[in-house]
Amino acid sequence: MGIMPLNFERAFKTMDKYGLDALVATMPENVLYVSDFLSLSQWALRGVPVFIVLPRDAQPAMVSPISDIDLYADRPSWIEDVRGYGTFYIEPPEVEDLREAEERLNELIKKVKLDAMAVDALVKVLNEKGLDDKTLGVDEMGVTHLTWECLKRKLPMAQMRDASHVFREIRMVKTRKEVETLKKAAEITEKGVKAALDIAEEGVKEVDLAREIEITFAKEEAKPFAVVLGCGSRSAFPNAMCTDYKIRRGDIIRFDGGCIYQGYYSDIAKIAILGEPTEKQKRYYGAVVKGAVEATKAIQPGVKASELFDIALETVRKTGIPHYKRHHCGHGIGIECYDMPLVGPADHTLLEEGVVLNIETPYYEIGFGGLQVEETLVVTKRGYEYLTTHTEELMTL
Amino acid sequence: MGIMPLNFERAFKTMDKYGLDALVATMPENVLYVSDFLSLSQWALRGVPVFIVLPRDAQPAMVSPISDIDLYADRPSWIEDVRGYGTFYIEPPEVEDLREAEERLNELIKKVKLDAMAVDALVKVLNEKGLDDKTLGVDEMGVTHLTWECLKRKLPMAQMRDASHVFREIRMVKTRKEVETLKKAAEITEKGVKAALDIAEEGVKEVDLAREIEITFAKEEAKPFAVVLGCGSRSAFPNAMCTDYKIRRGDIIRFDGGCIYQGYYSDIAKIAILGEPTEKQKRYYGAVVKGAVEATKAIQPGVKASELFDIALETVRKTGIPHYKRHHCGHGIGIECYDMPLVGPADHTLLEEGVVLNIETPYYEIGFGGLQVEETLVVTKRGYEYLTTHTEELMTL
Repeated sequence: MGIMPLNFERAFKTMDKYGLDALVATMPENVLYVSDFLSLSQWALRGVPVFIVLPRDAQPAMVSPISDIDLYADRPSWIEDVRGYGTFYIEPPEVEDLREAEERLNELIKKVKLDAMAVDALVKVLNEKGLDDKTLGVDEMGVTHLTWECLKRKLPMAQMRDASHVFREIRMVKTRKEVETLKKAAEITEKGVKAALDIAEEGVKEVDLAREIEITFAKEEAKPFAVVLGCGSRSAFPNAMCTDYKIRRGDIIRFDGGCIYQGYYSDIAKIAILGEPTEKQKRYYGAVVKGAVEATKAIQPGVKASELFDIALETVRKTGIPHYKRHHCGHGIGIECYDMPLVGPADHTLLEEGVVLNIETPYYEIGFGGLQVEETLVVTKRGYEYLTTHTEELMTL
Repeated sequence: MGIMPLNFERAFKTMDKYGLDALVATMPENVLYVSDFLSLSQWALRGVPVFIVLPRDAQPAMVSPISDIDLYADRPSWIEDVRGYGTFYIEPPEVEDLREAEERLNELIKKVKLDAMAVDALVKVLNEKGLDDKTLGVDEMGVTHLTWECLKRKLPMAQMRDASHVFREIRMVKTRKEVETLKKAAEITEKGVKAALDIAEEGVKEVDLAREIEITFAKEEAKPFAVVLGCGSRSAFPNAMCTDYKIRRGDIIRFDGGCIYQGYYSDIAKIAILGEPTEKQKRYYGAVVKGAVEATKAIQPGVKASELFDIALETVRKTGIPHYKRHHCGHGIGIECYDMPLVGPADHTLLEEGVVLNIETPYYEIGFGGLQVEETLVVTKRGYEYLTTHTEELMTL
């Protein structure tokens, strides 16, 4: 990977805001964000803990399953203090001519401190760093109540606070490298959708279109995260999973979703009509596009997320769908698909330079279909910049 | 999907064993297992709850985000009592000619009971079913301490027990349909590895091989779960993530991992040598294969998982790697990559007909490489049957 996403300045400022002496990352996304270390076991299996301790005024440390230590050796994190837990065997070399990563692995195996349980290793780190009687922001989303209670029992003097929202707040503003990665993720998704639309014609199945998208992701070294694809009146199903339905002339083809590239999400929506659109398709599409575009035009630092929501809703209603209702018209995107803020009526977060947003105005009507525009952009000093290929025209095939 | 995996008889027997009046599934895998309902939001986003209540002596019910109700309409679960939470808008039809799934969606939107919060909907279900003063087995892996504490507060008379292990115990024995799906997942992974090895020659990069595997998964409508691929001495890195390393003559090519097909995992390992194997490669490979094969031959109902471990270890040591050490030599596989049992020294679970096992004997030596055999099989009435294409020969390219 090698994104090194952590925005240190923002992390420390946010810790100060919430009065935290240290953050403890537990959820795979927050672990990756803070440490740039990806534990395959944590991502692939349930219940494999990885902890990153980021103190306000001391050196950070991480606790990893010892079985994943080779990943650290192969691509070291900026965090140098690594503790292991569990049991795993890798034999020492019989030869002397080793690659750098092999040297590192050989050294790590010899020197890493090992505990049987991850939580014991974490408690040791917190004790050693004098954090056992401090205020700790623990990412509650990545631990069960058992771990939480165990930590409280073993650190009776510490103040434990739920901190998943603190991580989300830190991550809301992206570094340049993160924005580049998000842009690449969006590009791959667009490429996938293009590949699908290239084969779209009467009689082609939804599954055939979805397959083209996923093959494109594989070719581009991205992973599918969600491929929602519904055609005809099936496009009204918000989460449409592709079926053997064969597309017909006049059908809406609605795609929503995207890929994960180097840990970063894309989530975009594209619409096309096979053939000539009907009057209603044109009018409604015009309204949802206009809603997204007008909300986007209002974007600049200092504007509230909720203001964008209001503009989007009002515009769609005025322009062609008077009965339009929606609970949100977009969301931040990053190392989670839904990052802060939510472009909803109750989220008054102020936009800042570096926030990456999805703006979307989907409309679903049973028996008619779904129309949706969802594009990604980054907030700049004076406005915004699309990370997607912005188009307003209704695509026809 | 449509696997309908739940083994009712085993579920009720296991609930009786642990004295549980109801099970509450919370983790995506357990939700899918019990209900055959896949909530896209729960899988794609963090912190989106879905609950399935499976009482011992009453009708089951589920709590889903209302935004995912279309997935239920499109492919109904056997569980008929559905509750929703949250806010979402889908417009009613303007036409009368609706498909069956559209009729269902239209009805559901009108009739589903809605709460603002998932946990409130869950508490209502438990109250209505008279379970509020009973013993509840709650899948603790899918909820944070906040939800756990909230449930305890709102159900002061209930006995709440951690039950993730109960779900794993139920899921340990697979239905015929589950075994078929696991076999298909293994076949797709083998096909992917074959595609990679078909292009393997001097100068080809690890990333090129991995790409072939992931393209195959996409073509076969499977998702990648882990593609570990290391060549040459890089194969000694247990979790090797593919790089730009170019393969050379004499290199070991080690693959480990697999795909997820219709919710079911495959996890297999394959080894090939580019060219003539060295004496050491041959001897060590012979030992790890022999270890896996001898452990497998011992498989039948009534045998302990730990006995297989002992046989595997002893055989590898006797046959060619006297210093061989390992913490486990296999694991169950199913809707999680690591299902019960663990083929380790401390797991004395008795094998039963229908248990699906991975048997593996990996060996990692820094500077030399990694050699690994991992195959999948199902325990039958009198022995076992491979779900993978069993081979003992060292593949050379």
